[in-house]
Amino acid sequence: MMKNKYMKLAAEEAAKAARRGEVPVGAVIVDSKTGEVISKGSNRVMEDYDPAAHAEILVIRQAAKAMKSVRLPECDLYVTLEPCPMCAQAISFARIRRLYFAAYDEKGGGVENGAHIFHAKSCHHKPEIYGGIGEKECSAMLKEFFKNKR
Amino acid sequence: MMKNKYMKLAAEEAAKAARRGEVPVGAVIVDSKTGEVISKGSNRVMEDYDPAAHAEILVIRQAAKAMKSVRLPECDLYVTLEPCPMCAQAISFARIRRLYFAAYDEKGGGVENGAHIFHAKSCHHKPEIYGGIGEKECSAMLKEFFKNKR
Repeated sequence: MMKNKYMKLAAEEAAKAARRGEVPVGAVIVDSKTGEVISKGSNRVMEDYDPAAHAEILVIRQAAKAMKSVRLPECDLYVTLEPCPMCAQAISFARIRRLYFAAYDEKGGGVENGAHIFHAKSCHHKPEIYGGIGEKECSAMLKEFFKNKR
Repeated sequence: MMKNKYMKLAAEEAAKAARRGEVPVGAVIVDSKTGEVISKGSNRVMEDYDPAAHAEILVIRQAAKAMKSVRLPECDLYVTLEPCPMCAQAISFARIRRLYFAAYDEKGGGVENGAHIFHAKSCHHKPEIYGGIGEKECSAMLKEFFKNKR
């Protein structure tokens, strides 16, 4: 049972993606001042024919539009999988305050793995990072999805 | 005078962005088999309130939709500035065949600089890369833009 209510919401989004045949990754953006959920969504790469339609990009885009600002310095992002380099860089551009992620992604991750985006010279904002929040459940969902795909 | 006709087109897109008050970066995607321009566009970060609305992301999204495929292995991408890590990773996801870019970006670039996306463990496709194509003109446009902003 997941304790963090926002990660739980992100996991619900991820489950919706799985039901649509997409890799189950979900994300939520929260206004840290009010606790309000500003945006939520999940991976839509296949259905939108959009290689950039990862959950994080979608919720950032949605939140920035809602707040009429390309910078979201008071917002926190919850996502069920370690962001890839594309999403990590978008998180940096959006000036997200805190990044919470569930499962680690050794193969495609760009935060604690691979390109280590937030430690690169090209990165001008690094959020506070909390990995492994709700890891067990979110990781299980991904494993189950790929098992059924094979 | 720029020799490469596709980079010239990308530069024209960049000039449009400048006129809209956006950082002048333009991009074009070309079908390498036919020479047909599949998509073209420029930076729309500010006007769309979208931190991910870089020229490369926009043309990839547009081309993938047009070709009804998230992978574009026969397509080449021309862009007036070295892609940032976000865009470089999107280029990798889209399986772009060749990347041509004009100006180098020491501060924010993620191809020959910073995160060196295509050399990271998280990168599973690396395009052929040609930097410095039309560099002088595209670089001058960016410098002019930022000079006027100050």
